[in-house]
Amino acid sequence: MRAATAAGREVFGYNRSVDGVKAAQFDGFDATDSLDEALSRATQTESLIVLAVPMPALGAMLERIRAIAPDCPLTDVISVKGPVLAQVEAAGLRPNFVGGHPMTGTAHSGWAAGEQDLFAGTPWVVSVDDGVDAAVWASVMRLALDCRAFVVPARSDEHDGAAAAISHLPHLLAETLAVTAGDVPLAFALAAGSFRDGTRVAATAPDLVRAMCEANSEQLLTGLDRAIALLAGARDRLAAHSSVADLVEAGHAARMRYDSFSRPDILAVTIGAPGWRDELAAAGRAGGVIRSALPVRDSRG
Amino acid sequence: MRAATAAGREVFGYNRSVDGVKAAQFDGFDATDSLDEALSRATQTESLIVLAVPMPALGAMLERIRAIAPDCPLTDVISVKGPVLAQVEAAGLRPNFVGGHPMTGTAHSGWAAGEQDLFAGTPWVVSVDDGVDAAVWASVMRLALDCRAFVVPARSDEHDGAAAAISHLPHLLAETLAVTAGDVPLAFALAAGSFRDGTRVAATAPDLVRAMCEANSEQLLTGLDRAIALLAGARDRLAAHSSVADLVEAGHAARMRYDSFSRPDILAVTIGAPGWRDELAAAGRAGGVIRSALPVRDSRG
Repeated sequence: MRAATAAGREVFGYNRSVDGVKAAQFDGFDATDSLDEALSRATQTESLIVLAVPMPALGAMLERIRAIAPDCPLTDVISVKGPVLAQVEAAGLRPNFVGGHPMTGTAHSGWAAGEQDLFAGTPWVVSVDDGVDAAVWASVMRLALDCRAFVVPARSDEHDGAAAAISHLPHLLAETLAVTAGDVPLAFALAAGSFRDGTRVAATAPDLVRAMCEANSEQLLTGLDRAIALLAGARDRLAAHSSVADLVEAGHAARMRYDSFSRPDILAVTIGAPGWRDELAAAGRAGGVIRSALPVRDSRG
Repeated sequence: MRAATAAGREVFGYNRSVDGVKAAQFDGFDATDSLDEALSRATQTESLIVLAVPMPALGAMLERIRAIAPDCPLTDVISVKGPVLAQVEAAGLRPNFVGGHPMTGTAHSGWAAGEQDLFAGTPWVVSVDDGVDAAVWASVMRLALDCRAFVVPARSDEHDGAAAAISHLPHLLAETLAVTAGDVPLAFALAAGSFRDGTRVAATAPDLVRAMCEANSEQLLTGLDRAIALLAGARDRLAAHSSVADLVEAGHAARMRYDSFSRPDILAVTIGAPGWRDELAAAGRAGGVIRSALPVRDSRG
C-alpha cells in the first residue's frame, strides 16, 4: 500500500487484523477490516486485487473473491507460485490471474514492518504461465514498476525451483547454524559477522518460514538433498584428506558468478504478440529484466 | 598496524610482500620486507610480536623468532588456537606466548583490505591456557583494548570448538548454498537478501577459508556432523509429514537466545593472582568480557 500510494495510485486495502487496519488508517491509508466491503468496491472500480496472505489463508480468500469480485484482475505476492496457481485454478479464477512474487522482505511482519522503499531495486517475478492474459499481465507489470521493482518474467514451476535454492534453503541453513552453535559453550560469546549474517533470517517468525518452506516442499527437497550431499562430501574429504578444497573452490566460483551476473534489459517483446509468453520466459531465464513498461498489443494475445 | 598506531602505540611491521610493504609505507607506516631486521629491532625494543600469518607459514616464522627474538613476548591473530599452541610449544617458545584471535575481518585480504576501526566493538579472544604468563597476558589484553576490541578470555580448545560452530561451519554452509543455487536456472536472477547474506562469506578467498577450516578439522567435523544430521532430519520430516517445524522452531529459539545474549563485564579478577586463569576461563564461558584493563599482580603469578 505504501509503495503503490507513493507512486500516485489509488489504493485501498483489507486486513483481518483490526489493529493492523487501525494502524494503516492512522498513517493515512484507506483500509478496512471488512473483506466483503473491500471486494465489492474492487468490483465497482475494476481494481487489480493483490493477494498478500499466507498460503493457508488463500483458499477462503479465493472463495470470497469468486463470490463477490469474480471479474477483477487478480495477482498475488505469495512466495511460492505453483501451488497458488493450482488453488486459483481450482477456484475457477485462472482466466483473470497472473501470479507475482516480489523477492524482498524483512524479518518482521505486520503493518509496522513495511516501508515505502521495500521493493526499490529488487526483483518482482511476474508469472508467464501458459494462457496468462496479456492485459492482466501488463497491469501486474506496471504495479511492480510503480513500486520501483524490476520485473523478472518466469514460469511458475521454474520460479519455485529457484526460490527453493535462493530463499527456502537459506532459511533452513540459517536455522541449522543457529541450532548447532546454540549447543556449543562459548559460541555466542565469540559470534561475529559470519554467524550474524548466516543466521539473520533465522530471526524470521517460524510460522512465516514454515509456510514458505512447506508450501514448496517438492522443490525444497531437491535443494536439501543437494546441500546435504555437498556437506557430506566435504565432511568425508576433510576426514580422509584434511581438505575442503572441492567445496570451497566451487562455492567461491559460484559466488563470483553471482557477483558478475548481469541483468540485461528486456526491450524487444510486445506483450500480447504471438509467442510473447515463451519469449519472456526465455529472456527471464537468461537473466533479463523489465525496467520500463513493455508495449501491449491487445488484451487476449 | 592501523588500529594500534591510532591508539598512540609505536608500531613497526614486516610483510614478505614488497608491494604490501610499499603500500603501508606510502600510508605513513613503519614497515619492512626484511624479517630479520624486524625481529632484531623487536629484540632491542622488547616489543610484543604479533604473528599475523596463515597457518602454513607459521612454522618458518617461529624458527626465525626462535633464532633472533626468543625472549620477546609473543601473540598471534590466527583463527585457530590449539594447533598454533602446539607449534609454538614445538618451537620452544611457549613460555612467552599467549594466543589471540580477533573475531573480525573482511572478505578481502592484503594491505588495502584493512581499516583502523576493524576491531572496534568486536570480540578478541585471549587464551588462558595452563601456565600462560601474567605479564604477557596483560600486554596482549592491552593491545586488544587499545584496538577498541573487548577481550574474551578462553582456553584454546574451547575457542576452537566455538570457532568451528560460528565461523568455519558458516563458511562451509555459505559455499554449499552458492553451489546449490549456481546449478539452478533462474536462481541468480531471483536472488535477494537471504541469498546475498547467506553467501557473503563465500566471496572470501578460497585459500583463507581452506586454511582456517583445515587447521581446525577435528572441531569442524563435529560441527559438520551435527549440521548434516539436523538437515537430514528436516529433510525426512518434510518428505514424510510436510513439516519443517522442528528445525525452524529450534533455529528461531537459538537465534533469539543469541540476540538476548548479554556480555557482563569481568571486573573482579586480578591477572597473576592465584587461580586467575581458571577464573577468567569460567567468566568467558559465561559470556563475560573485559572492556577495560584488569589489574596485574606480578609477572609470574
